[in-house]
Amino acid sequence: MREKDFISIIKNTLNSDYIGDDCAYLKDLGIVVTQDNLVEDVHFCLKYMSAFQLGVKSVAVNISDVCASGAEPAYLTIALSLPSYIDENFIKKFYKGAKSVCQNGVEIVGGDITGADKVFVSVCAIGSSKGRKISSRKNAKIGYKVVVSGVHGSSAMGLKLLTSGKKAPESFIKAHLEPTPQVEFCSQVSKNINSDYAMMDTSDGLMDALSTIANDSGVLLKVDYDKIPREKGVDKNLVLFGGEDYGIVAVVPKSFDCGGVVVGEVVEGLGVDLNIDGKTVHYSKQDVESSIFNHFEGVNNEI
Amino acid sequence: MREKDFISIIKNTLNSDYIGDDCAYLKDLGIVVTQDNLVEDVHFCLKYMSAFQLGVKSVAVNISDVCASGAEPAYLTIALSLPSYIDENFIKKFYKGAKSVCQNGVEIVGGDITGADKVFVSVCAIGSSKGRKISSRKNAKIGYKVVVSGVHGSSAMGLKLLTSGKKAPESFIKAHLEPTPQVEFCSQVSKNINSDYAMMDTSDGLMDALSTIANDSGVLLKVDYDKIPREKGVDKNLVLFGGEDYGIVAVVPKSFDCGGVVVGEVVEGLGVDLNIDGKTVHYSKQDVESSIFNHFEGVNNEI
Repeated sequence: MREKDFISIIKNTLNSDYIGDDCAYLKDLGIVVTQDNLVEDVHFCLKYMSAFQLGVKSVAVNISDVCASGAEPAYLTIALSLPSYIDENFIKKFYKGAKSVCQNGVEIVGGDITGADKVFVSVCAIGSSKGRKISSRKNAKIGYKVVVSGVHGSSAMGLKLLTSGKKAPESFIKAHLEPTPQVEFCSQVSKNINSDYAMMDTSDGLMDALSTIANDSGVLLKVDYDKIPREKGVDKNLVLFGGEDYGIVAVVPKSFDCGGVVVGEVVEGLGVDLNIDGKTVHYSKQDVESSIFNHFEGVNNEI
Repeated sequence: MREKDFISIIKNTLNSDYIGDDCAYLKDLGIVVTQDNLVEDVHFCLKYMSAFQLGVKSVAVNISDVCASGAEPAYLTIALSLPSYIDENFIKKFYKGAKSVCQNGVEIVGGDITGADKVFVSVCAIGSSKGRKISSRKNAKIGYKVVVSGVHGSSAMGLKLLTSGKKAPESFIKAHLEPTPQVEFCSQVSKNINSDYAMMDTSDGLMDALSTIANDSGVLLKVDYDKIPREKGVDKNLVLFGGEDYGIVAVVPKSFDCGGVVVGEVVEGLGVDLNIDGKTVHYSKQDVESSIFNHFEGVNNEI
């Protein structure tokens, strides 16, 4: 994956301890920060996505990252670069969509607006770590359970439908165009947990999140496919490798009650063992990366 | 100006108190935050700007905004969207440039990397307000003095030379491609001042900063053109209306000693009175906006 190679170069050039999780945890300021770009015809297509929906999605993907860090979403800045054909109506609807996702006092506080050839959205989200325990991909430990919140594969199913000109079933379309971040689940975890834990959203797919946590923590995640929450009619490739559901994978002590669906446990080893169709299939880091590469293009990679 | 109209729509849609200054001051978190987009062929051209210089400029413009708020620059995230022809070498040089501007412990802590048709850079900068007094454009008061740090017009002169195929004199070229934020001046002001004060960088031109402060504060700034620091050979239109110098205008009590060059004072009235060529020329808000519009295109407008 080209972008993952670039991330290695950036890590080496910057030689920074911060680059790794989706959010950077800035302990001295008591905040986390994350930033995502959404580019027309790479991440979205205005043929099937309205200005309101683009506003929703741009904010939702960043709030999802803040929630997965364990922090409380607090503030956003939005920088828009827009072609000359974009009118006032587009801007109004975009910001109405963006604002509609700002629950519980989250505020859009600034940004930038410039010209461009295509629509380009960059959102930066800041969360407060006050009263919360911040997660890390490196914190999965042997004996912990693997918990999932949200359904998986619906967004990729929605995209598949949209790109083939369909606009139904609505649940799949909405999952893709107006994803809902798992604010409540993440908040319950980070406000109540005492131990170190791992948490990630499934923006790049469920298997990507499972594999990243497993490999960054140096453990093996045993996961039952049958337990993964999903809608009927969604192909298993989409459930496992489809991105942009913005569900959550949390790896927490077995005794910790956080809701969600327990789909597996952490044992000695490395990677992911998936129990599926009566067999156990092992996925190394490379297996997952090449599966994502084979199934999907234009995957967005957070530094 | 089209983008300024859009900013009004955004302000109305969001109905937020934060939208106004270049940085949003988030008092509860003790931070300021700002974000700027730089788009290929709108804000820069790779024909005359190297990857290293793009890294320098992307970070410098955001550090300049943080400094002008009075906060101490602390952390940055950088989201890059890149065409497929961009190679590892470009990324390395970009981040080396970006890192070279990160003085005094400023760190790049994350961001995003995606595909795009053109090079698109979005930088978010966070500053700490600890031990500093934060500025506002609304804080200029009658009896205050107008102080300028940095030279004006050199960047626009550099751009004029570059677009006509010239690469000298070096001071003008460097002013445009590798601007230096006024870190020390701003820090001296915000660490030592006790009164409310106004401070802005001159990213959109010296007259834009003077006029914005005057109109947002409801006062008249009397300024002597002859006192404005500038290099020899720079046309007065460029000194007054040329952008991207990243100098500073600070409006502070007369008794406050902050270095820089005193160019004028604040009196009763509204707008800017410029003493130039033995005459006093009055600039209303509209005069300045239409002058910028007439002289320059593609002006970047912070929300």
